[in-house]
Amino acid sequence: MSDKKKILIQLDSDPIPSVFDRIVAIDAGADEVFSYGGIAPEMVRDLIYGAIFTRGTKDLNHTAVFIGGNDLARGEEMLGRAVKSFIGSLRVSVMLDSNGANTTAAAAVASAGRHQELKGAAVLVLGGTGPVGKRVARLCAREGAAVRLGSRSLDKARQACEEMRARIAPGSGSLSPAATQSEAELSRALEGVQVVISAGGPGALLLPKKARERFQQIKVMADLNAVPPLGIEGVDAMDKAADRDGVVAYGAIGVGGLKMKIHKQAVAALFERNDQVFDAEEIFKLGRALPAQ
Amino acid sequence: MSDKKKILIQLDSDPIPSVFDRIVAIDAGADEVFSYGGIAPEMVRDLIYGAIFTRGTKDLNHTAVFIGGNDLARGEEMLGRAVKSFIGSLRVSVMLDSNGANTTAAAAVASAGRHQELKGAAVLVLGGTGPVGKRVARLCAREGAAVRLGSRSLDKARQACEEMRARIAPGSGSLSPAATQSEAELSRALEGVQVVISAGGPGALLLPKKARERFQQIKVMADLNAVPPLGIEGVDAMDKAADRDGVVAYGAIGVGGLKMKIHKQAVAALFERNDQVFDAEEIFKLGRALPAQ
Amino acid sequence: MSDKKKILIQLDSDPIPSVFDRIVAIDAGADEVFSYGGIAPEMVRDLIYGAIFTRGTKDLNHTAVFIGGNDLARGEEMLGRAVKSFIGSLRVSVMLDSNGANTTAAAAVASAGRHQELKGAAVLVLGGTGPVGKRVARLCAREGAAVRLGSRSLDKARQACEEMRARIAPGSGSLSPAATQSEAELSRALEGVQVVISAGGPGALLLPKKARERFQQIKVMADLNAVPPLGIEGVDAMDKAADRDGVVAYGAIGVGGLKMKIHKQAVAALFERNDQVFDAEEIFKLGRALPAQ
Repeated sequence: MSDKKKILIQLDSDPIPSVFDRIVAIDAGADEVFSYGGIAPEMVRDLIYGAIFTRGTKDLNHTAVFIGGNDLARGEEMLGRAVKSFIGSLRVSVMLDSNGANTTAAAAVASAGRHQELKGAAVLVLGGTGPVGKRVARLCAREGAAVRLGSRSLDKARQACEEMRARIAPGSGSLSPAATQSEAELSRALEGVQVVISAGGPGALLLPKKARERFQQIKVMADLNAVPPLGIEGVDAMDKAADRDGVVAYGAIGVGGLKMKIHKQAVAALFERNDQVFDAEEIFKLGRALPAQ
Repeated sequence: MSDKKKILIQLDSDPIPSVFDRIVAIDAGADEVFSYGGIAPEMVRDLIYGAIFTRGTKDLNHTAVFIGGNDLARGEEMLGRAVKSFIGSLRVSVMLDSNGANTTAAAAVASAGRHQELKGAAVLVLGGTGPVGKRVARLCAREGAAVRLGSRSLDKARQACEEMRARIAPGSGSLSPAATQSEAELSRALEGVQVVISAGGPGALLLPKKARERFQQIKVMADLNAVPPLGIEGVDAMDKAADRDGVVAYGAIGVGGLKMKIHKQAVAALFERNDQVFDAEEIFKLGRALPAQ
Repeated sequence: MSDKKKILIQLDSDPIPSVFDRIVAIDAGADEVFSYGGIAPEMVRDLIYGAIFTRGTKDLNHTAVFIGGNDLARGEEMLGRAVKSFIGSLRVSVMLDSNGANTTAAAAVASAGRHQELKGAAVLVLGGTGPVGKRVARLCAREGAAVRLGSRSLDKARQACEEMRARIAPGSGSLSPAATQSEAELSRALEGVQVVISAGGPGALLLPKKARERFQQIKVMADLNAVPPLGIEGVDAMDKAADRDGVVAYGAIGVGGLKMKIHKQAVAALFERNDQVFDAEEIFKLGRALPAQ
């Protein structure tokens, strides 16, 4: 067993590296957190070199990288650069959670999955073309659900489905685009759906109560926006398996406890090996393995 | 008992966060210091959110905030923003010590109080309208002294007294303005005074020796400026309860040992609860409780 | 024995303080690393004041300063400012290793010295006027070698020798300039030489194989440039005491293991006393004392 300290290198795209991520890292068992703010993709390589050229291969699982900040697109680019900088076995485990998107999507899908078996279920993702929505859709499809990826624009929804198809294992669930702007479109999208997850931006109502009430088969609904008005009318941000008109409801803060547990679990797991890359799927898998709260 | 690490979040208004404050924090028992430089008041809220939304309420006493930097006015604004960012019991303890002003004022008043009971005493604060001077005046008045807040401009002195009156508990000491520019004004201000504390800027002689010598009742004098010429002629920066013409004298460096002890004590005390706000008064109270050196 | 934590203050001239130096510091036993990036010489004094005015004299060996970054000239200026900021016994140990120059030079000379007694040997330093080359020349001369400091310009070589003469103890080795541009000059410089160390910039071939092969007395050659083409034709960056045409060869990566050991050893040694200044010579001395790998 190595006596090396566990070092987490926090690469944050924001000028001020997140206090939140830093505290969670410490509480997850990192001995040291090296916090870097204002990181752009082109700075990543040298930082990774510093990480992989210091400790011996057998100790490299004691160094890991966490990519955060508000800008998820930039975070994804940073993750790509990090992985490309590794040289054979000279690599460290790395986790992406810009804007908390991965841990949020994982917590939402894991929460829904506690009430409705996702394999074979029909799931509607509202605001599905945004970064969190795409992650939710990916996770549900990989669990075996027939996912309708909703967007006001059918074209955008189609494009997002195309993008992600490569990530869905053949034989698992499916992804299909759904327009959700007009009442008629929304009704078509809700037909036969057991789970609705709303991942739209703050302040946009995507599913009015009266549209939803006509579909009694909906079993679970989750809204990942914490700023009112929420995307699903009738859900409260604090809801955590709350009963709302006979539907199990989750709000953004309601999934927050599980999100936090998943975040900690993932940071701790980074140090188990030196070759892990934690994006949505890997983080979800860790989250699903957690005992129910 | 929680096994959470004690995290101090250092918010410094200077671009380079103070090494001094960081070392003292470690020596005071903080397990981790998160150092942020170049902090402006409008950045404080998000940093505080990171602090209060991570750990459970029962563990929030293991996270605390230290506000420092050279600009005390900015530090006060940052303190205000921090306190306003708390949400009910979601809060952490916070300490302000920009430019060392609070720990310096506390050490000076505690030192003087070891030689002269402040309750009922007459105290002259030279340079009393500056940030340290105002803190010294507040502390002495709350101890029960009749404080003369001195300034070259009577108007400014009056204004400073007005500002602070709300902070002095009724029935405790008093605050009155005193002009101290001309020899005649200075003599009037020194009449019957037992304690003189000089808190003016560097290089300004506020009390010439010959003016002081005519007032044999002066028992203690302290000068908080470390750069010669000091504000009180005849005091040396190293003086620590030194006898200067029969007066007990303290210089800036002479109170430094106690100041450091108070600083450490205060940082350690931050972690006792999660709802403390340490400005001059609270820090002085901690300092007074320390055993004499 | 003090129970103070060992704090290393990393002053880096680059905007992003080196991850490499930070990890090595932790692995060398520092309990805390305070990392500061974008440091200019004029900022050093206040940072040093923060280091020397916090802990008592008997504990100052628990605080130390590491100067790094890519710019060695700036690092040397920072070291000068740090040393000038000390006040009598109020000082901390400080180490310079900008661009890894000191630990690299120390590792190269120590490696060569394992195969050829340097006292009395003739050593040619190619690229000898650069910062690493000058360090290599200094170290060899102090070991008692007759050093030929090579440069394409004899004037520059002469100037570098002049500069360093004060640093070579009288009675130890010697330093003499050598032009190395033309084939004839190079041959003259190689006459009777046992050790060749190349410290030129990346991508400049300084010693072609056919020039070298005519000098069978060469016993050791080391090339400190890791980017091909190397300075000495026929050496590989990975070489570590490799046999190349009967010559013991070292490449930049080949000396890397020893360089890392020396780096760690030096950081650990900083905390033994509070009055050490580690530049090339001191770091070499530590490196030579390490057991052979």
